[in-house]
Amino acid sequence: MKFSMKPSLNWLLIFVPVSIVLRMWPQLGSAAALFICACLAVIPLAGWLGRATEELAQHMGQGIGGLLNATFGNAAELIIGLMALSKGLTGVVKASITGSIIGNLLLVMGASIVAGGIKHRSQSFNKTAALASATSLTLAVVALVIPTVFHWSAAKSGEWNPVLEQKLSLAIAIVLFTTYAFVLTFELFTHKQLYTGEGENRTKEEKKNHHAGRWSIQKSIIILVGATAFVALMSEFLVGAVEAARATLGFTEVFVGVVVVAIIGNAAEHSTAVLMAMKNKIGLSLSIAAGSSLQIALFVAPVLVFVSYAFGQPMNLEFTLPEVVAVFFAVQLIFQISSDGETNWLEGVQLLALYVILGILFFYLPEVHHAR
Amino acid sequence: MKFSMKPSLNWLLIFVPVSIVLRMWPQLGSAAALFICACLAVIPLAGWLGRATEELAQHMGQGIGGLLNATFGNAAELIIGLMALSKGLTGVVKASITGSIIGNLLLVMGASIVAGGIKHRSQSFNKTAALASATSLTLAVVALVIPTVFHWSAAKSGEWNPVLEQKLSLAIAIVLFTTYAFVLTFELFTHKQLYTGEGENRTKEEKKNHHAGRWSIQKSIIILVGATAFVALMSEFLVGAVEAARATLGFTEVFVGVVVVAIIGNAAEHSTAVLMAMKNKIGLSLSIAAGSSLQIALFVAPVLVFVSYAFGQPMNLEFTLPEVVAVFFAVQLIFQISSDGETNWLEGVQLLALYVILGILFFYLPEVHHAR
Amino acid sequence: MKFSMKPSLNWLLIFVPVSIVLRMWPQLGSAAALFICACLAVIPLAGWLGRATEELAQHMGQGIGGLLNATFGNAAELIIGLMALSKGLTGVVKASITGSIIGNLLLVMGASIVAGGIKHRSQSFNKTAALASATSLTLAVVALVIPTVFHWSAAKSGEWNPVLEQKLSLAIAIVLFTTYAFVLTFELFTHKQLYTGEGENRTKEEKKNHHAGRWSIQKSIIILVGATAFVALMSEFLVGAVEAARATLGFTEVFVGVVVVAIIGNAAEHSTAVLMAMKNKIGLSLSIAAGSSLQIALFVAPVLVFVSYAFGQPMNLEFTLPEVVAVFFAVQLIFQISSDGETNWLEGVQLLALYVILGILFFYLPEVHHAR
Repeated sequence: MKFSMKPSLNWLLIFVPVSIVLRMWPQLGSAAALFICACLAVIPLAGWLGRATEELAQHMGQGIGGLLNATFGNAAELIIGLMALSKGLTGVVKASITGSIIGNLLLVMGASIVAGGIKHRSQSFNKTAALASATSLTLAVVALVIPTVFHWSAAKSGEWNPVLEQKLSLAIAIVLFTTYAFVLTFELFTHKQLYTGEGENRTKEEKKNHHAGRWSIQKSIIILVGATAFVALMSEFLVGAVEAARATLGFTEVFVGVVVVAIIGNAAEHSTAVLMAMKNKIGLSLSIAAGSSLQIALFVAPVLVFVSYAFGQPMNLEFTLPEVVAVFFAVQLIFQISSDGETNWLEGVQLLALYVILGILFFYLPEVHHAR
Repeated sequence: MKFSMKPSLNWLLIFVPVSIVLRMWPQLGSAAALFICACLAVIPLAGWLGRATEELAQHMGQGIGGLLNATFGNAAELIIGLMALSKGLTGVVKASITGSIIGNLLLVMGASIVAGGIKHRSQSFNKTAALASATSLTLAVVALVIPTVFHWSAAKSGEWNPVLEQKLSLAIAIVLFTTYAFVLTFELFTHKQLYTGEGENRTKEEKKNHHAGRWSIQKSIIILVGATAFVALMSEFLVGAVEAARATLGFTEVFVGVVVVAIIGNAAEHSTAVLMAMKNKIGLSLSIAAGSSLQIALFVAPVLVFVSYAFGQPMNLEFTLPEVVAVFFAVQLIFQISSDGETNWLEGVQLLALYVILGILFFYLPEVHHAR
Repeated sequence: MKFSMKPSLNWLLIFVPVSIVLRMWPQLGSAAALFICACLAVIPLAGWLGRATEELAQHMGQGIGGLLNATFGNAAELIIGLMALSKGLTGVVKASITGSIIGNLLLVMGASIVAGGIKHRSQSFNKTAALASATSLTLAVVALVIPTVFHWSAAKSGEWNPVLEQKLSLAIAIVLFTTYAFVLTFELFTHKQLYTGEGENRTKEEKKNHHAGRWSIQKSIIILVGATAFVALMSEFLVGAVEAARATLGFTEVFVGVVVVAIIGNAAEHSTAVLMAMKNKIGLSLSIAAGSSLQIALFVAPVLVFVSYAFGQPMNLEFTLPEVVAVFFAVQLIFQISSDGETNWLEGVQLLALYVILGILFFYLPEVHHAR
């Protein structure tokens, strides 16, 4: 949710103009090339978007600032989702929700724990905060499972109809959204002390990082608006080229969503989380990764459902069985690893192993048609 | 399992004569009205039944008394189940088993944790006792899952037959019943110290409550018999009117069982558990709710299977997929929340959110035909 | 994984010559008799095989010795698996993998915890080591679930084909095998201190046991080779007679694999684990049982997949739904019981109750055809 921008990703900004050129003169490169360039361009833009949100948040004081971070922290994923939704690609939207959740929980957390575990024999973190996240994530898993269960059961009784399923999904989205409001109240108000301990380490870290380059409100807003505009543009390219790219690269829609989009959207969180783990701030790494997953599941997903109505293409929350199973086991593993308040490198390897197994599944999986 | 009767529920006793009048002169009100009145009448009666059991238990000494509480604590649910069974409504019976389990785990526990969490920043309880309950509940989940898995697998191989499924369910019911005997041995004999700490708080509480109104053995037995008779009568009305009420109110059989019957049967436990949580006795709240679920799963359900043979309408333990999923995730969330030995208000909200999501599922779910 | 041979099992060696006689003169007894005799003969042989491996390991120093134990500790199961594979009985192979995992986790652990719990009110063990095992086992569960999920999803989209499934299984087997290498690195090198505490108790125990009978390298190797040869011979008999035995005894292929083969292959671990628990070394009991399960899941299963290619009868990792569910809940229960670092007799009873429920399921389950 919170992260600072690594300079090393900035050179990828070159792909912003490259993508624009490729889009304006399609004869210069294939749709697949445009897709790849737009993907690469999103990485640093998502980082700038996150940084600007965070800088602005610091001007706003803890409460409002936390709220800002909590709602705009995954703005890139939200924008990509909206673009895909506007073209009716609900399968890609759902797959990228799945991918963001498992990418954060398994890839980002796994890499962080391994990176931290190589230097430190064992690292400890606040168990109560970790369990609160794991439990909220379990709730998100249920929210993904229920519409699928509903579909099967209703289909079996011969009375399934899409309107009923739509209503069910909308009702569940409202519950998730409301739960997120409670989670934020817990994190930002009633139990903020649980998060402050880390926050303080955090702030010092930040201060050191940002001492020279603290942004003004104006600068933050300008960069926020600019980065948002460019992310939206790149997302439009990316989503527009996804069909052609899939055909060329031989990836399925689900694989693109689950693996490609998820890695792109979370690259900035990823680098920050790994860096923090290496500095023995594993609690911060875990809260970045878990917080990001939680935001996708309890905020971005419901918002996309709500907005899909405005687009006249209602999206339900019925995910495919592989998606549901993937998220279920990712959350299960996170819960198991969180339950003792300590990490070691093997736990990171186990998370990465699960990510690889799931990646293999989605790679080999033939195209499955989502119920819209 | 244990609770004291709140006076505030007693005025609902007015619905006992109202129900009798409606039953004798049906022209005075619809079947739906009878159903609702009988439902409301069961609430205080279940409370009196519980109170009488408990009073009698106190005369019997800890061992026998505990046993009495453990077997008659959910007498109301058992009686409603027997009535429904006698009319062949196995779907309602199973749904009310599901509903009692998730109602206790999510609604009662959730409300208790929220009520306690508003007043107290964090509340702690005995982890070993909580884990023992959670593990027994997991066993109950398996017992519900296995017959469903059996059905699917056997159907796939083309060799499913109801007799085989009946045998399987009977064998599992025997294992559950035996496990319950071991659980009681653990709670009442070999490890009663784990529960005594709470018991002592409890007893003091009780003493204060009951000082004036301690019942004699005669009074306890008379009220026990009387309340049982009236619960049986109201259950007969309730079950008799359920078909007509469903049609009028637009609820499915499963929704009635899962939500309506479950709330009615557990209202008294509910009020006691919430009250205890507000007095910072969260351990007692959790043991009331978990104990009640456990009793339904490991005692009431097997007994209903056994008795169904006497009625010549054997009931199996095959539950529908939504029921199995609901109980599975309810137990999973309880386990997660129990694993750190502390509660805070957010955990209560998470349990309630799951209850709402499951309620939505069962509300929208079209009628599914249980395999008898 | 590690155990010492109990003399009491040695008299079963009489079944080695009996089996040979029955095989050479089939008119002397039925195939079912041969099957039973071969089963009984494997029990002490597996024990000698384990003992010889361990003696040799002690000559090799901790690192190499640990590796030897970790790879040959379940040699008997591996040999039986190879024999069954060579005859194309992939269903039996898979069922015996399932059975070994749940047998170790539920039967061996359950019996050990009960045996220890009768003498000791509560026994404690190293939580970090137990959680590392539980998490690795969860990974193994995922590895079993994924090919089944793949099959269903691919079949639903009408694009399932066995070659794709084979590739998926092979890729997953490689991930599991690699994970096992990391688990061994953790246990034997980077975090061996976690296991040393127990190891020291262990070593003293060993010393006492072995003081008189410490074997030389030559003796260890001779017995290792001899026991391997006889296990292979008995396995050949056992597997050759399995079809006929099934028909006579009325067991299904799955029941034979899950219950019979699993009990036979793990009898020696079983007796050692129970003995250790009674001596209040519950940590050692749990690590024997969990280690053996882990070895089956992350080492034996992948090796069997790899070898199946050499035999020209590629085996995939698609297990039946009942097998997947059985392993899932066994691991879930183990995780729950491990999470507090303590055991009591009720937890053992709960594990045994799950074993009995699963045994009932597999007993009643009609023959299901595994996808090869």
